Amino acid sequence: MKKFLNTAESFVADALTGLAAAHPELRVDAAARTVARAAGAVPGKVGVVSGGGSGHEPLHAGFVGEGMLDAACPGEVFTSPVPGQILAAAAAADGGAGVVFVVKNYTGDVMNFELAAELAADEGIAVRTVLVDDDVAVRDSTHTAGRRGTGATVFVEKLAGAAAARGAGLDEVAGIGRRANAASRSFAVALTACTTPAAGRPGFDLPADEIEVGVGIHGEPGRGREKLRPAREIAAEAVRAILDDRPLPRGAETMVLVNGLGGTPLSELYLMYGEVAAVLAGRGVTVARNLVGDYVTSLDMAGCSITICAVEEPFLDLWDAPVRTPALRWGC
Amino acid sequence: MKKFLNTAESFVADALTGLAAAHPELRVDAAARTVARAAGAVPGKVGVVSGGGSGHEPLHAGFVGEGMLDAACPGEVFTSPVPGQILAAAAAADGGAGVVFVVKNYTGDVMNFELAAELAADEGIAVRTVLVDDDVAVRDSTHTAGRRGTGATVFVEKLAGAAAARGAGLDEVAGIGRRANAASRSFAVALTACTTPAAGRPGFDLPADEIEVGVGIHGEPGRGREKLRPAREIAAEAVRAILDDRPLPRGAETMVLVNGLGGTPLSELYLMYGEVAAVLAGRGVTVARNLVGDYVTSLDMAGCSITICAVEEPFLDLWDAPVRTPALRWGC
Repeated sequence: MKKFLNTAESFVADALTGLAAAHPELRVDAAARTVARAAGAVPGKVGVVSGGGSGHEPLHAGFVGEGMLDAACPGEVFTSPVPGQILAAAAAADGGAGVVFVVKNYTGDVMNFELAAELAADEGIAVRTVLVDDDVAVRDSTHTAGRRGTGATVFVEKLAGAAAARGAGLDEVAGIGRRANAASRSFAVALTACTTPAAGRPGFDLPADEIEVGVGIHGEPGRGREKLRPAREIAAEAVRAILDDRPLPRGAETMVLVNGLGGTPLSELYLMYGEVAAVLAGRGVTVARNLVGDYVTSLDMAGCSITICAVEEPFLDLWDAPVRTPALRWGC
Repeated sequence: MKKFLNTAESFVADALTGLAAAHPELRVDAAARTVARAAGAVPGKVGVVSGGGSGHEPLHAGFVGEGMLDAACPGEVFTSPVPGQILAAAAAADGGAGVVFVVKNYTGDVMNFELAAELAADEGIAVRTVLVDDDVAVRDSTHTAGRRGTGATVFVEKLAGAAAARGAGLDEVAGIGRRANAASRSFAVALTACTTPAAGRPGFDLPADEIEVGVGIHGEPGRGREKLRPAREIAAEAVRAILDDRPLPRGAETMVLVNGLGGTPLSELYLMYGEVAAVLAGRGVTVARNLVGDYVTSLDMAGCSITICAVEEPFLDLWDAPVRTPALRWGC
């Protein structure tokens, strides 16, 4: 295993130490294993909290800040945060108007966030949960009942975060998040497997001329192996899988994320974006906003995911709203 | 070779097509192979232009925009842009106040930018050149006479770009760029080699338990091979190499870039930043600004570089100035 780390056991803690050193605008609580805004919860504002296993950086801690998340709770690598940890994040995010949990649909996360919501209710914090389940590739995988939550998490967290920043109420913020998820679909392709610090070797073996199609973000299998093909064909297949699941009429307006899984250079992601945009243009679908880069990763996996979100009112307005986090920043 | 591409020959062109599709605020001229601001040159403002071989994305095209570069000219992978191409970028950037070329110190780039400066002079465009040569690892490598230009390019382009945006004159902008370079030193470590689309296989073989120390950004060799060690020791060695070359007194203030080489996940980069910050703190050196992420890459190479810039007046003020580019964005 070749990684920049000290020990496998201290990987998450050491990475959080670095995050804290780099971003004094965040408050990293090493004991509680939470990341919140250093300025504290905003009184009267709905808090937005997310978390999940580590290994998907910048998700979620990199999205803590003005206009997006109020707190994040990173678990160990590919392991759900525990209920007490999620509760600590909720407490850090609560400004008295309740908290929205953004939860990727994996069995462990769903269970632990549910328990944390009960604990929060006991402490007088009202919680609404938005489940993210955008991956069209597989149903009922090793980690999930139903669909996996992947790239759409970025759209859900940005739009819900913007709504909360504008003063929307608890149900309204949750409603925006649920609509963003319902409007989004994703599909991913891996060129290599990822290696967790604990395992020390790749999660699966992929021959030199094969790709894993419909892969998840934990190295879990996808739809199957295929021969490596030109980017144009891979992009067309991904878009087809997405639009087969959620057809879009000609003239539809979308937001598109071409997301690197951790080991893929930006040049290849832009190349893929060009192919995706061309496929969509051929179907008469417009891309109103796009994001190209590493946002929801799978450690060092080479690969990319494509997320398409059908635009509804007021998605674009919320997308364009100011955001100031380590990983997304504009308008302020 | 596993990459998202159509053909090795069309790799750079296809990636630029994607960049153009994703960023309508840029004007990508596919024939001239230049990337400029869609709004055109700013009358009366000094233009700032950079370029070099492709494969280092987001450098340089990802730094075109308000407050940084006016134009970029990407060559083929790891290959200097040609003089006519550089001239086209200069023409696109010239608002009548002259143009500053930011040139990484590689033999081909230096020669071609010199020729382009002569061609520009013939067309009435005054040019000043800032040479970037920050890499302390090796002298006179396969690609260079003298030191290689690497991570400091980000500091040079940001500070010179900010000075130009504030109305500084041609010599002043060039002077800021030269001071930023003179104040900066870098050192890189690779865990894997990179694979160019044309070669189709890694540029060197690195055993599973070895790292290449002092590596360049084209897969060229570094100071030598060492056994893989804890991140803490690697960070300490890199900082030592940098400070041996340019000592900093206790109390010194710095800007630090922990830069991914393309295939390294953000979690490991933050972990490395934490170690670098700790080493500097132990030496009584303050980090006033930091940047952690992929900025000057080497295709899919797993590895990172560390750049330390000693702060002078008015570096911090220029660093904090608004910037709005695909890869760096704040304050607007």
